Amino acid sequence: MSDRPTTQPGETDRLDSATARAQVLIEALPYIRRFFGTTVVVKFGGNAMGDEGLAARFAEDIVLLQAVGIRTVVVHGGGPQIGDLMARLGMESEFRDGLRVTDAETLDIARMVLVGKVNRDIVSSINVHGPLAVGLSGEDAGLITANERNPDLGFVGDIAAVNPAIVERLLAENLIPVVSTIGADLAGQSYNINADTVAGALAVALGAEKVIYLTDVAGLLGEVTDPASLISQISAPELQALIDSGALTGGMIPKITGCLDALERGVGSAHLLDGRVPHVLLLELFTDAGVGTMITRSIGGGA
Amino acid sequence: MSDRPTTQPGETDRLDSATARAQVLIEALPYIRRFFGTTVVVKFGGNAMGDEGLAARFAEDIVLLQAVGIRTVVVHGGGPQIGDLMARLGMESEFRDGLRVTDAETLDIARMVLVGKVNRDIVSSINVHGPLAVGLSGEDAGLITANERNPDLGFVGDIAAVNPAIVERLLAENLIPVVSTIGADLAGQSYNINADTVAGALAVALGAEKVIYLTDVAGLLGEVTDPASLISQISAPELQALIDSGALTGGMIPKITGCLDALERGVGSAHLLDGRVPHVLLLELFTDAGVGTMITRSIGGGA
Amino acid sequence: MSDRPTTQPGETDRLDSATARAQVLIEALPYIRRFFGTTVVVKFGGNAMGDEGLAARFAEDIVLLQAVGIRTVVVHGGGPQIGDLMARLGMESEFRDGLRVTDAETLDIARMVLVGKVNRDIVSSINVHGPLAVGLSGEDAGLITANERNPDLGFVGDIAAVNPAIVERLLAENLIPVVSTIGADLAGQSYNINADTVAGALAVALGAEKVIYLTDVAGLLGEVTDPASLISQISAPELQALIDSGALTGGMIPKITGCLDALERGVGSAHLLDGRVPHVLLLELFTDAGVGTMITRSIGGGA
Amino acid sequence: MSDRPTTQPGETDRLDSATARAQVLIEALPYIRRFFGTTVVVKFGGNAMGDEGLAARFAEDIVLLQAVGIRTVVVHGGGPQIGDLMARLGMESEFRDGLRVTDAETLDIARMVLVGKVNRDIVSSINVHGPLAVGLSGEDAGLITANERNPDLGFVGDIAAVNPAIVERLLAENLIPVVSTIGADLAGQSYNINADTVAGALAVALGAEKVIYLTDVAGLLGEVTDPASLISQISAPELQALIDSGALTGGMIPKITGCLDALERGVGSAHLLDGRVPHVLLLELFTDAGVGTMITRSIGGGA
Amino acid sequence: MSDRPTTQPGETDRLDSATARAQVLIEALPYIRRFFGTTVVVKFGGNAMGDEGLAARFAEDIVLLQAVGIRTVVVHGGGPQIGDLMARLGMESEFRDGLRVTDAETLDIARMVLVGKVNRDIVSSINVHGPLAVGLSGEDAGLITANERNPDLGFVGDIAAVNPAIVERLLAENLIPVVSTIGADLAGQSYNINADTVAGALAVALGAEKVIYLTDVAGLLGEVTDPASLISQISAPELQALIDSGALTGGMIPKITGCLDALERGVGSAHLLDGRVPHVLLLELFTDAGVGTMITRSIGGGA
Amino acid sequence: MSDRPTTQPGETDRLDSATARAQVLIEALPYIRRFFGTTVVVKFGGNAMGDEGLAARFAEDIVLLQAVGIRTVVVHGGGPQIGDLMARLGMESEFRDGLRVTDAETLDIARMVLVGKVNRDIVSSINVHGPLAVGLSGEDAGLITANERNPDLGFVGDIAAVNPAIVERLLAENLIPVVSTIGADLAGQSYNINADTVAGALAVALGAEKVIYLTDVAGLLGEVTDPASLISQISAPELQALIDSGALTGGMIPKITGCLDALERGVGSAHLLDGRVPHVLLLELFTDAGVGTMITRSIGGGA
Repeated sequence: MSDRPTTQPGETDRLDSATARAQVLIEALPYIRRFFGTTVVVKFGGNAMGDEGLAARFAEDIVLLQAVGIRTVVVHGGGPQIGDLMARLGMESEFRDGLRVTDAETLDIARMVLVGKVNRDIVSSINVHGPLAVGLSGEDAGLITANERNPDLGFVGDIAAVNPAIVERLLAENLIPVVSTIGADLAGQSYNINADTVAGALAVALGAEKVIYLTDVAGLLGEVTDPASLISQISAPELQALIDSGALTGGMIPKITGCLDALERGVGSAHLLDGRVPHVLLLELFTDAGVGTMITRSIGGGA
Repeated sequence: MSDRPTTQPGETDRLDSATARAQVLIEALPYIRRFFGTTVVVKFGGNAMGDEGLAARFAEDIVLLQAVGIRTVVVHGGGPQIGDLMARLGMESEFRDGLRVTDAETLDIARMVLVGKVNRDIVSSINVHGPLAVGLSGEDAGLITANERNPDLGFVGDIAAVNPAIVERLLAENLIPVVSTIGADLAGQSYNINADTVAGALAVALGAEKVIYLTDVAGLLGEVTDPASLISQISAPELQALIDSGALTGGMIPKITGCLDALERGVGSAHLLDGRVPHVLLLELFTDAGVGTMITRSIGGGA
Repeated sequence: MSDRPTTQPGETDRLDSATARAQVLIEALPYIRRFFGTTVVVKFGGNAMGDEGLAARFAEDIVLLQAVGIRTVVVHGGGPQIGDLMARLGMESEFRDGLRVTDAETLDIARMVLVGKVNRDIVSSINVHGPLAVGLSGEDAGLITANERNPDLGFVGDIAAVNPAIVERLLAENLIPVVSTIGADLAGQSYNINADTVAGALAVALGAEKVIYLTDVAGLLGEVTDPASLISQISAPELQALIDSGALTGGMIPKITGCLDALERGVGSAHLLDGRVPHVLLLELFTDAGVGTMITRSIGGGA
Repeated sequence: MSDRPTTQPGETDRLDSATARAQVLIEALPYIRRFFGTTVVVKFGGNAMGDEGLAARFAEDIVLLQAVGIRTVVVHGGGPQIGDLMARLGMESEFRDGLRVTDAETLDIARMVLVGKVNRDIVSSINVHGPLAVGLSGEDAGLITANERNPDLGFVGDIAAVNPAIVERLLAENLIPVVSTIGADLAGQSYNINADTVAGALAVALGAEKVIYLTDVAGLLGEVTDPASLISQISAPELQALIDSGALTGGMIPKITGCLDALERGVGSAHLLDGRVPHVLLLELFTDAGVGTMITRSIGGGA
Repeated sequence: MSDRPTTQPGETDRLDSATARAQVLIEALPYIRRFFGTTVVVKFGGNAMGDEGLAARFAEDIVLLQAVGIRTVVVHGGGPQIGDLMARLGMESEFRDGLRVTDAETLDIARMVLVGKVNRDIVSSINVHGPLAVGLSGEDAGLITANERNPDLGFVGDIAAVNPAIVERLLAENLIPVVSTIGADLAGQSYNINADTVAGALAVALGAEKVIYLTDVAGLLGEVTDPASLISQISAPELQALIDSGALTGGMIPKITGCLDALERGVGSAHLLDGRVPHVLLLELFTDAGVGTMITRSIGGGA
Repeated sequence: MSDRPTTQPGETDRLDSATARAQVLIEALPYIRRFFGTTVVVKFGGNAMGDEGLAARFAEDIVLLQAVGIRTVVVHGGGPQIGDLMARLGMESEFRDGLRVTDAETLDIARMVLVGKVNRDIVSSINVHGPLAVGLSGEDAGLITANERNPDLGFVGDIAAVNPAIVERLLAENLIPVVSTIGADLAGQSYNINADTVAGALAVALGAEKVIYLTDVAGLLGEVTDPASLISQISAPELQALIDSGALTGGMIPKITGCLDALERGVGSAHLLDGRVPHVLLLELFTDAGVGTMITRSIGGGA
């Protein structure tokens, strides 16, 4: 506000516009108050992560969430980035059932890319706004204990236990934990773990109010080929019925299963948002009109 | 966000508007972060206090300030309301040098009106949004020690000391203190004290970042008859020079003197705002364009 | 003790008297220890409130209670004082079933008198001894949520909920809350509430050890016309039997019902004291001989 | 107050007496408030220690001091009791300049008597009133570091350093430390130290408000043979002048020197009281008329 | 490490020895980590207490335990030392069923010896290493409430209640409580209590991980006359079976009963160690090879 | 200690060896006590980092340090590992004045290797012993603010500021921070920073007692070609004189300059140790004979 231009009373346009701006802030008020002190876990991924502009918007949103008192945790994946470095090194990726077969060298690459590059980029983009973000791996302070999913897949892990103490501690210091989804077993062996699953499990362990998935689709579609069929809000039982009816298929199923699991274990609501929309987090959380799909525990449940 | 209307992707208007709203929130971000945890004392008064709509807008603003982490204190006067009750009781108001001569009965009326009506109305309008505001009088927990200004004026007091402990305590509990400007001397005798003066002294005692006066004028005018001469920002030395030059006269002089005194004793900036503009507090604090006059300690100083 | 008169050893009278004084302090010891850290809610009212000398004695007692570690809360009414101001304004009081019909203007008067005068007078008389008392209304920080008792009575309220957080907070700071019994509903509408009822409800909400009512009678009389029939101690079941037998009638019934309700919901004991006896609080709490009526939860129960 | 006798209104005597009792409590109020939270070190000794009745009165006083929020520390000596055991064991006491020559065996006896008998008796008499007192020796947790005073005296020590941490810790838990004046040097060798000196040094180390000596005389006498010449209050400079004039002689000199030293190093006041007067502590601290001699830092200084 | 001798690389011997030392530290690591923050109660007694060298070794061990984060409590007896002083005073000791008949004078002697000599000696030997130990008697702050065991035995007490608050408080300050086993009843009468019993009861009250008894035997022997029959580890059920079979007899029975009782009430393990072995505590706690007998709750249970 | 082999009394060898082990623990005691609660920064690097056995020994040592209450911070470099990945990717390393010219791609590689591989490996090896280590980069929570050293070197940074808050926070939680030496400027641009320099600066910012460098040499040699000339202890002034005399040259100069700088700014001592010696940290810290070179602030200064 320093060095601001001298303004003239009577400049109706400016005042009108100013009033409209005040209105936005006022409309955000009930949401700000409702979410103050609650925990929100955001899974960042998809194309937004690779788009510098969207990534900067995402960082702004995360910082705003923290600034208004929301305890915010970021969880990220990075499959494509892992594939890129492997390709540069002349290594070939092999997938079984959609999961990357992960030998020791692949794990090394995955860990370097996730912890040493993707995580770092997110932390840096947030910390442009102040010393706020701290990168974590599931290996840190016993955050994620993993065990082997399937010997054929190598070092692909399932979550055996989540110890959120280190995350709680950083949140208590008003810091923003950014979590790479590498876990370790009790013998110190590391595993690569699915980030969608980690986001849900972390939300449960933290008693989070919301778990939010940024994706590359508009949200949950009633009919997968019809963008006009976006479902704005749905309860867990309704969603379960939809799954049972076979209406939903394909790549969303695991993510949705994760949402339902988190809701059942106490998380308040789960959100599937279109990460390609700038500031989609703010729009979903602080304005009356939602942008993606909100899944509530019970029919007609609120956020 | 519960029960929200189903929205359709492709509705460009809605998204555009949504993005504009996100933009307002994002623009507010640096201010929200800068003011987080700071203390702001707001003197509420003038016509806004008597206008139900403006009073409700004021309450919304105060709650938003608190919601984004600003430690907010409201100080209020109520001269006209005191006059009203005196008139209803057939008592006559006598003024000397602009100050109401205050005998024991007048003091009783003043105290009832300020503490029992004006203060209550402000507290109620804030608490519609949640259990946030707590009314205080300067007599509570030794907040304001007063002494007699002038025997001819009766129980009109000057500030002898401010003990802000009770205000600090309520702020630490995330509550909003609303202060009536009755003080007491050590023998328990109460006095009516000028609210503008109390606002400044409280800001100093609290180490406030800002003291803000809501008035019935657009701000500080270079020429008092020309609304186009509004001064948007001015430093304390420049303002002192203006006073010394005789360019400023009339009723603003005492209020301005109070501002200069507060700035000199450590308050970051003082603001004179037009209380008749809805949400003028939000516009001044969270948007790039100021609405009234900001007085900074040094030339070119920021907020 | 400074500037004390030089005393001579051998002055037997003085020493005897001094020993007697030591004896009083020593007798108070077990009570002081037993009540340390407990909470006591005192309903102040009746003629004592209007008598300057008795009010000063009351303030001294309250300060002594706080000084020896009792968490003390004062609740007050003020019906006669409300009537006085209404009369001065030419308004007429209308009562139904002993309750004042309260339209918007009457509520305004009631609130001004209770919060702006009666409460202030109590706070001031306590704070002569130090910055100890803080005035509260049930509207502050959501202390008392009210709802309408009966549309015919206007803004006469029942207690819907008590949120004692603000009272607890002040007690934790060694302050003495003085509570006016105005409550508000969730829409911000204020109501006038019976002070006897509030005292009991607050005692329950605070887990108080005692709720004490200062009245204009000597205590509970076995036969209402015979002052010699004062009941010094009675258990709740015995008192209930007395009520059931019809032996007790008239104005005490509601107050007694309040006592029984508080006892049932966990308050340790309820006391009906004669507010016209100077320092009746100290006599009841710190000397072996009680002055009024103590109602205990069970037969033979102690204080 | 349970099972109290039914009392009759109209019993004027009882009420009058009750009022007188209330008056004592009320008179104590300003003292209770002034001393709340301050630290008082009491040196217990002389005949009072050997008189079961006086010792019980002393314990009552100490418990009352603690009950009204005074942080109370007891320091004790026990020369006669040491002599008794030595006599029983057929050992002879040898004194030089009033100090007992202390070989290893004598030290053993002194330590057993002070820590294992005198200290225990004081702790037990206090703890009849509740789990309040904790016995300490200067050897505990490095409380008193001692060094040898004079090789000819054996294990008679001077105070090299006081580390009051353990005492502070017990006071913070509302416990009453009772200190035996055995100290140890850094090599673990124990020494017997003069208790008057320890009381003063501990008062200084704790930033005490008062250090109080219970003695076997009425207080400081202007003329040592004239009990009517008791000095009720005297300032340090006046007392120093008296010493310099040679008016004071004999056994009180070292004790008085200790008082002056404590006052100079920050203790608020020093008191010489007649330990043979029952409840002399209460009389001195909580009534207007002092019983012994109060020594203030400056002329006309208060308590 | 200051002023250390210049060492030469290539001095193989030194390095080899150094490596061996590192190995010891490294072997201790899992134990140090496992016991960090746990509570261990050590009963000190027997010949070790009278042997200056062993007592100094014991003090070193206790300080090392505390240094690595074990909350360590020492409990001691002192029967022989009591007998010595009684003999010197020409008093005769009378025993019934192995317990000393204790009249008032004998109690006085016992208390002086235990609290004023044995306890002091232990505290001093520990505090050579720093201001760590604090002597306590069961009379302090209500630590041990006792009642009379048998009128014929005089002031020999049983444990009625243990209030470990004062011990907990000292442990929280990283201090080492050293406890003499004198208790008091509610009337303030003291009693001498068996130290083995107190050690077990205190371990239970503190939720201790271990209770350790230092004795004058190698441990529990399968056959009491055959030192080669030492039982290194045994579970409570196995030990109970051994007792039931009559294989164990004599003086160990009460001590063993105490162990079993402590284990049943939650203590992790009980140890019987040979106090005549220097540093036996360290060897038992921090090396793989135990030295005495460890009794675990269940068969195969660990430490 | 569970399931331990039955041992036989009389086995002299075992007991002797046990006593020797106790002796090692006892010798470590004064060091453990002296260093309890102090902060030690350890720079890990050189060949030890690439040797799996030595790395495991290092992890054991670090965990032991933490277990005995030393606040331990690990700082690491990783030049050779960066070179390896660059080689695998066909990138060429260019050095100027011993510093790697770092373009954007090289920085990406360096960051991935340091944060995503070297740091992870250290964290994992420590966390085999429990959830203790947390990896940090200088970018986290504003730990290291960097600025460009020299445009010709690209993203090679100097330390502009250290904000140790996040490290302090983790230490307060008894965690072990492991720091990669990537910093960021205020615009979010990352830089690679020399790890030796970061170790010293972090030690200064944390008020560390010691900064320890693990190297590939035996320590500081009086004559660089003569291993027998190892300097065991030297003061800063003496070392400065040695540098000034030209006796020291080559690669150690920058490291030594860092040590001197840290000592001057308050660190207690600096150590140069041979990382190739297993458990060299334990030997240096907990045994009387040092292994490398200790640099003290003043002549004859201790550790």
